[in-house]
Amino acid sequence: MEIKKEKDESLEKARHSLAHILAKALLSLYPETKLTIGPAIEDGFYYDVDLDHSITNDEFGAIEKKMKEILNKGEDFTRKVVSKKEALELFKNNPYKTEIINELDENAEISLYYTGDDFFDLCRGLHVESSRQLQNMGFKIHGVNGAYWRGNEKNKMLQRVYCYAFKTKKDLAEYVTMLEEARKRDHNKLGRELELFTTVDYIGQGLPILMPKGAKVIQILQRFVEDEEARRGWQLTKTPFMAKSDLYKISGHWDHYKDGMFVLGDEEKDKEVFALRPMTCPFQYQCYLNKKRSYKDLPLRYDETSTLFRNEASGEMHGLIRVRQFTISEGHLMCRPDQLEDEFKACLELAIYMLKTLGLYEDATYRFSQWDENNREKYIGTKEQWDEAQSKMKNILDDLDVPYSIGIGEAAFYGPKLDIQIKNVFGKEDTLITIQIDQMLAEKFGMEYVDKDGSIKIPYIIHRTSIGCYERTLAYLIEKYAGAFPLWLAPEQIRVLALTDRNNNYAHSIKEELCKLGFRTEEDLRNEKIGYKIREAHSMKIPYLIIVGDEEEASGVISIRGRGNENQSGLKLSDFVERLKNEVESKKI
Amino acid sequence: MEIKKEKDESLEKARHSLAHILAKALLSLYPETKLTIGPAIEDGFYYDVDLDHSITNDEFGAIEKKMKEILNKGEDFTRKVVSKKEALELFKNNPYKTEIINELDENAEISLYYTGDDFFDLCRGLHVESSRQLQNMGFKIHGVNGAYWRGNEKNKMLQRVYCYAFKTKKDLAEYVTMLEEARKRDHNKLGRELELFTTVDYIGQGLPILMPKGAKVIQILQRFVEDEEARRGWQLTKTPFMAKSDLYKISGHWDHYKDGMFVLGDEEKDKEVFALRPMTCPFQYQCYLNKKRSYKDLPLRYDETSTLFRNEASGEMHGLIRVRQFTISEGHLMCRPDQLEDEFKACLELAIYMLKTLGLYEDATYRFSQWDENNREKYIGTKEQWDEAQSKMKNILDDLDVPYSIGIGEAAFYGPKLDIQIKNVFGKEDTLITIQIDQMLAEKFGMEYVDKDGSIKIPYIIHRTSIGCYERTLAYLIEKYAGAFPLWLAPEQIRVLALTDRNNNYAHSIKEELCKLGFRTEEDLRNEKIGYKIREAHSMKIPYLIIVGDEEEASGVISIRGRGNENQSGLKLSDFVERLKNEVESKKI
Repeated sequence: MEIKKEKDESLEKARHSLAHILAKALLSLYPETKLTIGPAIEDGFYYDVDLDHSITNDEFGAIEKKMKEILNKGEDFTRKVVSKKEALELFKNNPYKTEIINELDENAEISLYYTGDDFFDLCRGLHVESSRQLQNMGFKIHGVNGAYWRGNEKNKMLQRVYCYAFKTKKDLAEYVTMLEEARKRDHNKLGRELELFTTVDYIGQGLPILMPKGAKVIQILQRFVEDEEARRGWQLTKTPFMAKSDLYKISGHWDHYKDGMFVLGDEEKDKEVFALRPMTCPFQYQCYLNKKRSYKDLPLRYDETSTLFRNEASGEMHGLIRVRQFTISEGHLMCRPDQLEDEFKACLELAIYMLKTLGLYEDATYRFSQWDENNREKYIGTKEQWDEAQSKMKNILDDLDVPYSIGIGEAAFYGPKLDIQIKNVFGKEDTLITIQIDQMLAEKFGMEYVDKDGSIKIPYIIHRTSIGCYERTLAYLIEKYAGAFPLWLAPEQIRVLALTDRNNNYAHSIKEELCKLGFRTEEDLRNEKIGYKIREAHSMKIPYLIIVGDEEEASGVISIRGRGNENQSGLKLSDFVERLKNEVESKKI
Repeated sequence: MEIKKEKDESLEKARHSLAHILAKALLSLYPETKLTIGPAIEDGFYYDVDLDHSITNDEFGAIEKKMKEILNKGEDFTRKVVSKKEALELFKNNPYKTEIINELDENAEISLYYTGDDFFDLCRGLHVESSRQLQNMGFKIHGVNGAYWRGNEKNKMLQRVYCYAFKTKKDLAEYVTMLEEARKRDHNKLGRELELFTTVDYIGQGLPILMPKGAKVIQILQRFVEDEEARRGWQLTKTPFMAKSDLYKISGHWDHYKDGMFVLGDEEKDKEVFALRPMTCPFQYQCYLNKKRSYKDLPLRYDETSTLFRNEASGEMHGLIRVRQFTISEGHLMCRPDQLEDEFKACLELAIYMLKTLGLYEDATYRFSQWDENNREKYIGTKEQWDEAQSKMKNILDDLDVPYSIGIGEAAFYGPKLDIQIKNVFGKEDTLITIQIDQMLAEKFGMEYVDKDGSIKIPYIIHRTSIGCYERTLAYLIEKYAGAFPLWLAPEQIRVLALTDRNNNYAHSIKEELCKLGFRTEEDLRNEKIGYKIREAHSMKIPYLIIVGDEEEASGVISIRGRGNENQSGLKLSDFVERLKNEVESKKI
């Protein structure tokens, strides 16, 4: 069932109008400002200006004050149409606007928007009628970044002034509070503080280093996924991370994805050119191709804990979410047409099981990613093939009652996708899991099977992930739980604290006992105040603290502190162990 | 304790002398033959000749016959010295010998060796005195390969005639039998037949694809190693597979190892140049560098299931043993000087534990790999540093009573190594495990700790593997067990065969039960003769077959067939499960 996303056009209009007010304020405060463009964005707007003076944070207040003064005048927004020649004359001192105007048709109607008599800007619109309509808005300038004119690093670096803008002051306040909360959960900050990962300049952007705690969480996730998939009939493979260009020429990656790939060697000079793989598909297909297949062999389900490499632009890197190297719960399934729906359903069930187990299910939405018929060079295959694959997928999704939005142009180059989308704490959406139907690559690789009647057929391929990229999943888990992982995932599950030096042996014996039982347990036997030790352990978000003093030691019991306000004394270790076991085995979230 | 390797010089002399006999035989049979060089090698010798006619396998007999005829004459080997001018005149029709002669000193004594009056060859010697001494040798021509003159692909392709040669005919026969046995165990053949791995031309050499069965063995090994190391205090990391050249410039890899690395990008053109990592060291060091370290934090032990890439020459690839990408049980340990010996010992104990568990311990030898003082540009550090590190290692090895040979020039560029060597079925030796002492890289990366007295110190680093490369280990395991893996490692542990269609449900229920208990179990319910099913399962080297017919079904029991000649009937499934559990848990070999 398709879900249409709503767009708040009136808010967008108000934001863009407010951008003109900012521009007017900037010109008033810094008359030498050269305006360029100022679009609405999802939490307000920005304006890119060319100005020698660098705007600093402590000037934001004065700019906002000037904006309010302008708004208080209640000036109208009025549109005026001029000829290209007139426009060029009006903006002759502004090379940016001149560049924009020069790109327009000779006979184009060029519109200016006036705010009051003393300010106008080159603009297509639309705008509110009067700045009175903006007087109730909540807005706040929150940053200035460098941005190249038209995003091209060969151009001049401008100042991009960012401003939050919402319909009311209350909306703004709520948004700012949400952001403060999000910053506390931001995996890119919290993940470093909790020593889950780090990055290092001389290694490079988008190449995070998973420290022991982060590597432990990923190890647990990988084993969980591999075992669950094995139970569901998937066979693990381990295929190489690079191949000669020959492979990618067959698969189509060389023509359709080369810019996103890391290439080793020079096609002009070297006999062999290799590339790091951006996807696992053509590698896993080799397992299928290793012998002749019959209709009785299908479905064949290959999964892999697969590392992929994508040559992302430096500006797009973000913590563990946008990276150049990542490891993914990849899988490819070859099946007959009569098996396609059931197998697709099983893949979706697996993904949902994973999301539910991790506690991310409620945050997920579905996108049916289709090709863009008007941009055919991005894809392989014919219109008939695309229509068929997309209608097959639509039928399956409708049968399964999946509520999806449609993403035109978001398909893979070889077929449509069901993308399971998730937002990070700042509201930025990314794909976590994807399930795709492909009827083209099998043909390219000569993958076949002998059908019941002896005829040679080409299988359908489902490309799918189950938990997605482990790095990205870890990022969402950090943000979801603000670093306080469920017990089964926590890198350090229990810390044993001795109340005094006298209790160190007892504390140590408890730690050893728990380690032997397979619980990830540390001890804190330092000669420090217990309050200090507890605070430190809480700051590391450890699920359980065991505290033992003379009293506990004398009775052979323990006291525990949970991450909530749980505080229990006089427990038998064996009873606590039972509780831990249940919590781990049930993967309690 | 150093062990000196013996070299059989008299056998080498005999082999090289026999090469002259081959040369004489070839000239006699193919008078247009141009001789080049014919050295002794470890199982005989070869001779490279330039000859338009391609020697085929069915001509080997005639050549051997001619060699025997020559030997039967009992001619002497006599040495004659000539001047450079005379030598050039004698070999004026042979461009290869001419090239060799031209490289010699103007006044060099150039020696010829005559065999009889009618044959001589340019040769430094040494030789036996008479071909009578070769009459009892066992020899056998076994192949002709193409080989470029002087190994340079720009030169002409010659024919390299290979010949086995041993002191007696019995030695030869034993060697040939050993080879036949070895060929049956050759992982590069058997591993493919058992569907453990495959390779594909268009992916590339040295990039094996681990099929589900091979990937399963490696998954089991990896989990075993990671868990065992965690128990021994190692902390798992997961660091990126590539970095900017900046990192390798600090570590010294850029200067000392670049030729062996895959480089992404062009230093002249690109802002950032990346390279795939050939070693994990500088990546794991970043975990150490993530915060300030105190003497109390040491030793810090980081392990990683780490994938590495080495740009090996195409000709050196071999199955799973010489590859371009491999995954290794890598680890780096930072410690104080007073901890070095104990930690080194613990690393060696771990390696030995692994070898014993896998059943490879008896096949391993130890090499103390030292630097080559006469080749200093290959190494970093001063003579004093090398002397210190090597003497530290010598003391540790002698304390631990490790019997080692010495390998001059086999050290890493940053320090000496203890290499645990193992031979493949054909006798070719490679390093499986390595433990290294390094006191140089910590300084390069600014790795420090605060000592008890507040002073800043630099830790020792031990680089070590515990099980080595998983691909290579898998290769040795295939060869060791001729594909019949111990139960705990077998990709398919049990196969349930139904005697007739009537027993399919019963067979299936047994399979399901075993799968639920975590045993890797398959079923064969095909309508085929039971003998055929058994032969097929045996050929896949499955440890246990369960066979059920009407009799077993009626009594609710099973019959089993082990891989030896074990054959038991009327077993209770629960009893068999107990046995399986014990065998898996004890990792019985």
